[in-house]
Amino acid sequence: MSNRIKAGIVGATGYTGVELLRLLAAHPNVDVCAVTSRSEAGIAVADYFPSLRGVYDLAFQTPDEAGLAQCDVVFFATPNGVAMKEAPALLAQGVRVVDLSADYRLQNIPVWEKWYGMAHASPETVARAVYGLSEMNRSSIAQAQLVANPGCYPTCVSLALLPLLKAGRLKENMPLIADCKSGVSGAGRKANVGTLFCEAGDNFKAYGVGGHRHLPEIKQTISGLQSNVAEGLVFVPHLTPMIRGMQATMYLHLHDGTDPHELLAGFYHNSPFVDIMPPGSTPETRSVRGANLCRISVQQAPQSNVWIVLSVIDNLVKGAAGQAVQNMNIMFGFNEEAGLNNAPLLP
Amino acid sequence: MSNRIKAGIVGATGYTGVELLRLLAAHPNVDVCAVTSRSEAGIAVADYFPSLRGVYDLAFQTPDEAGLAQCDVVFFATPNGVAMKEAPALLAQGVRVVDLSADYRLQNIPVWEKWYGMAHASPETVARAVYGLSEMNRSSIAQAQLVANPGCYPTCVSLALLPLLKAGRLKENMPLIADCKSGVSGAGRKANVGTLFCEAGDNFKAYGVGGHRHLPEIKQTISGLQSNVAEGLVFVPHLTPMIRGMQATMYLHLHDGTDPHELLAGFYHNSPFVDIMPPGSTPETRSVRGANLCRISVQQAPQSNVWIVLSVIDNLVKGAAGQAVQNMNIMFGFNEEAGLNNAPLLP
Amino acid sequence: MSNRIKAGIVGATGYTGVELLRLLAAHPNVDVCAVTSRSEAGIAVADYFPSLRGVYDLAFQTPDEAGLAQCDVVFFATPNGVAMKEAPALLAQGVRVVDLSADYRLQNIPVWEKWYGMAHASPETVARAVYGLSEMNRSSIAQAQLVANPGCYPTCVSLALLPLLKAGRLKENMPLIADCKSGVSGAGRKANVGTLFCEAGDNFKAYGVGGHRHLPEIKQTISGLQSNVAEGLVFVPHLTPMIRGMQATMYLHLHDGTDPHELLAGFYHNSPFVDIMPPGSTPETRSVRGANLCRISVQQAPQSNVWIVLSVIDNLVKGAAGQAVQNMNIMFGFNEEAGLNNAPLLP
Amino acid sequence: MSNRIKAGIVGATGYTGVELLRLLAAHPNVDVCAVTSRSEAGIAVADYFPSLRGVYDLAFQTPDEAGLAQCDVVFFATPNGVAMKEAPALLAQGVRVVDLSADYRLQNIPVWEKWYGMAHASPETVARAVYGLSEMNRSSIAQAQLVANPGCYPTCVSLALLPLLKAGRLKENMPLIADCKSGVSGAGRKANVGTLFCEAGDNFKAYGVGGHRHLPEIKQTISGLQSNVAEGLVFVPHLTPMIRGMQATMYLHLHDGTDPHELLAGFYHNSPFVDIMPPGSTPETRSVRGANLCRISVQQAPQSNVWIVLSVIDNLVKGAAGQAVQNMNIMFGFNEEAGLNNAPLLP
Repeated sequence: MSNRIKAGIVGATGYTGVELLRLLAAHPNVDVCAVTSRSEAGIAVADYFPSLRGVYDLAFQTPDEAGLAQCDVVFFATPNGVAMKEAPALLAQGVRVVDLSADYRLQNIPVWEKWYGMAHASPETVARAVYGLSEMNRSSIAQAQLVANPGCYPTCVSLALLPLLKAGRLKENMPLIADCKSGVSGAGRKANVGTLFCEAGDNFKAYGVGGHRHLPEIKQTISGLQSNVAEGLVFVPHLTPMIRGMQATMYLHLHDGTDPHELLAGFYHNSPFVDIMPPGSTPETRSVRGANLCRISVQQAPQSNVWIVLSVIDNLVKGAAGQAVQNMNIMFGFNEEAGLNNAPLLP
Repeated sequence: MSNRIKAGIVGATGYTGVELLRLLAAHPNVDVCAVTSRSEAGIAVADYFPSLRGVYDLAFQTPDEAGLAQCDVVFFATPNGVAMKEAPALLAQGVRVVDLSADYRLQNIPVWEKWYGMAHASPETVARAVYGLSEMNRSSIAQAQLVANPGCYPTCVSLALLPLLKAGRLKENMPLIADCKSGVSGAGRKANVGTLFCEAGDNFKAYGVGGHRHLPEIKQTISGLQSNVAEGLVFVPHLTPMIRGMQATMYLHLHDGTDPHELLAGFYHNSPFVDIMPPGSTPETRSVRGANLCRISVQQAPQSNVWIVLSVIDNLVKGAAGQAVQNMNIMFGFNEEAGLNNAPLLP
Repeated sequence: MSNRIKAGIVGATGYTGVELLRLLAAHPNVDVCAVTSRSEAGIAVADYFPSLRGVYDLAFQTPDEAGLAQCDVVFFATPNGVAMKEAPALLAQGVRVVDLSADYRLQNIPVWEKWYGMAHASPETVARAVYGLSEMNRSSIAQAQLVANPGCYPTCVSLALLPLLKAGRLKENMPLIADCKSGVSGAGRKANVGTLFCEAGDNFKAYGVGGHRHLPEIKQTISGLQSNVAEGLVFVPHLTPMIRGMQATMYLHLHDGTDPHELLAGFYHNSPFVDIMPPGSTPETRSVRGANLCRISVQQAPQSNVWIVLSVIDNLVKGAAGQAVQNMNIMFGFNEEAGLNNAPLLP
Repeated sequence: MSNRIKAGIVGATGYTGVELLRLLAAHPNVDVCAVTSRSEAGIAVADYFPSLRGVYDLAFQTPDEAGLAQCDVVFFATPNGVAMKEAPALLAQGVRVVDLSADYRLQNIPVWEKWYGMAHASPETVARAVYGLSEMNRSSIAQAQLVANPGCYPTCVSLALLPLLKAGRLKENMPLIADCKSGVSGAGRKANVGTLFCEAGDNFKAYGVGGHRHLPEIKQTISGLQSNVAEGLVFVPHLTPMIRGMQATMYLHLHDGTDPHELLAGFYHNSPFVDIMPPGSTPETRSVRGANLCRISVQQAPQSNVWIVLSVIDNLVKGAAGQAVQNMNIMFGFNEEAGLNNAPLLP
């Protein structure tokens, strides 16, 4: 395999798009050749995102002009419902695809259609998609032509649960609570009153309590690993006034005799992007700002048999664009850390 | 009783102090006569807090100069450990006291001494203190000479649980999880690296997971209302990058047949400062910013028998200075809403 | 005159609208009877703005249903271009109008039409409008049926210059620089990418450098007070990541022998809403948050003959809704401070 | 010269220290061998700054233990007054020094002593220091053993003025106004009430109007380039509620016939870290967040002969640690961009 590949990005005008552009600019093996946007076609990327002045010479193109079929890999950083229509043709031409939207995340088509409120346009392709939680599915990602990049909440929650579920250590039929908090960039870069500075700033609230699309995604992961646990999942997302960052506080019941710290530390021993912190630590979102990292700690609640697991990611990096690049690295046999080894930005 | 009283504030240089000054400036029955600070004695309040230029002519005085014994009521807005030394002398002279610190909140002295790390200086006075969760203890507050104003987290959590506990509706010996988030003003106005703008801003984290002083305070309230419930309490506080505001997401197990919305709405029907929102609502902290309000909603988690209760307050108002004024109103027979009927500041 | 009036608000779904509602809720002489919104007709105000739950029982109505002609005063909190169409009919029926939009601010119709990019719908009404910079035009406001409430930048800048211009103390034909910074709420509550939390947060920038609509408004005020000064005005607005607040740093050349602090302090001696701070002070925006105040200080630049004037307001209060209420108080002979004497919210 | 050097950092517990550590971690030619802190000696860097977990194995050491004399280069990220005492001994042993504090910035010792309020401990060393505004002094920096890294405000202002001053295009004896705004990280990472989240958040203010230490530093640069211009400088710094970022709006009088955009664009044509944007652009601070960049635009004020120059940097990068690394690159003959070519983090 060539050491250098050509990448395209469909729908690069949003936050995951600009983050992909930032990360790929520093990648030793990738040339970004095509960036599409129907609405901004003809505009230079550097004019649209002034942070990229001097970094890219590209302009946005319509999908027709962009020659995506000549790319080795195409990222979909599009709203839900686009990749399911456009990816199959690229796949047929041998292009590898990483879809950052939700189109290929759920294997159960009726469940997907219920939560996303539309008919799936390429249900026959879903089975070919590998769920791109890198640390869970490394070997199948390496063989995949189509990777469904996970949602931000599912990444933050599932990475913390994965070693415990694999070892069968969660108590069955018990509540498994994931109280999650997201920065505002998770809502995307679209004109919307609810995420205005003056609406989301200096404010904290739950949302989607009655049902969030990431609930079935997390349940799918849990069900695949341990039985009779997913049913107990309670997931409440919250909006917190910061730009980037996601935190999950999880309340678990574990089978007696489990040492969850040891399980986690052992499982992730060779994973460069998951950091198991000492018991009693409290990971903070800024400790991963701008970096493809998940930091996790676990401890027992005082005077209680409930275990508390804390997990943080940057929702735009390990929760989106960074994990997409990590998956691309795995798919193409690159060093898994290529382009992803910058330190977090603090403060 | 005279319709107009004289109030003193001990330690008014912090956030609860300046908030008391703001609220009392608009109170129809109160004259603030004395404001003490050892470190700022001689400085005009209006010079120290430019927001109060034109509002107060007072200067800070040392406690000795201030003539607190001539006040009808004295508020302690001091760090823990001050009121327990200074309040008894005032009480002995017939002054009524509202203590915003933690000194008189816990009836169990050894528990208090363990969590606060010091010997209690006036243990004999503790039994005389009425716990000032206004909606729980209105009638005893009306008779009290000494009110222990609750902590912010205990207020936010306990108001939501109170009607359920009173009705005995929480399942015994089951986890009762309170995932709580506070704005930074809860940490007070003291030089401290951890609450610098560049440390607390654009960041989210849990803290005090291994044990927070408000845990025994919440447990005391629960235990007083229903047996075998407090033991299940798991309380995790988090710091969120906003100035004011506190939110609690609680995960409860209720006895079958309970309608928690109906119980809450009925209980608080005549309480002007507790707003039970329609089921499915998500109260946000800015909806109570600057106001003496607690807004609560309750709903069942999707596909689960766990109940989710959401509660918000302004930590400096219903969580501190506002509830102190409310308690003062009750103690002196004023209209409970006097000085507290301003609408929240939004945006 | 009756001591109690009926007020209507046209277009109350924005930030100036909700701020008017907040302030009028506390006004001793006003009942808000009608609140209009074409898009939200039928929705309860308390559902639309949860901060107003328990404060208002009103629902939004269409302008036709609302019976605005029965009001004593109608506030237009609408985008530019609405009041110029709808106010004349109300005026003809004897209703007094305070227009918070820009429609009646500029007496020169062609200049207005150039800057606002539309034909003026009621040019014959413009001459009847009194410019509502309360401290400049108190006596004519008292007689006015139509008040053009000033823009936020013009209020912040003009209040600081007014006494100097009245005394003829600015050097003619010299640069007069107003470097102004606004919180994001100045951009209003409309879906817009540029004012998203993730765009405006943690960011600072100038905007409108090539020309801002408030430039001719400030020039009109200057020209009316001193000749050959307005030509030197350079006005650069900036967007700063805070919700409320506006600050102006002005760089002036004054005729020799001028004591600007003395002039300002003397001029505003009886103005409850303008606070001239001691020379060397630096007013901060939070010192006026939520209050109808302008705080100003003046000092000479070190090693220079340039004078520096600093001015702060809350753009939604003294820069919009608060000044509108102040003008209404003057128009109806109420105490000028009625409904406006709450202290700023700090922190 | 070896392609790989050893670097030490004195006083690495502040924001410029952690930023140096972040940047040097990605530098292809540098190994950080020693990091000193008297107060934190013995603590692992990765424990102190959780963002650096997995990046550094070092622990803080006392200056005595650290073996700084074995380093090729030592950075002082210390408060003012430390480098002037400790740098001379290192210089005597042949170590190169980049001082990020102010100790060696001003050539005029009495002026330095007046503004910094202390006697200079090594006045004889001052003359050997090269002022490290990289784009101004590249060739002398290449020869220097001691570089005085500029202040953040001086960098932001001087880079914009440099080409105009070099060409003698500023009008003599006229006001030259620099209205500057800084994020809060400029105040450093020390316990301090004024920079608490609840004091600096949601607030905007001027400060240091009566005199700021960066005034003589900017004047020194101006005086060295064009006569009779520095006297007109008026510099007002402001604090804006963001973590990183600095913006300057400058108001200039230029000799007739000057095309400042052309002058700037020509001067910086080969400077990778200065971006001259098209006239009419408004650079925003987030467009340089985390990157060693200065973006500048220039335009004429409408209806005026005043020129407006806008300049933005990240105060911790081009305004501190990034420029220090750039200077190190120049001193050691590395590629000037080594370790500094990451794209800005947006959003």
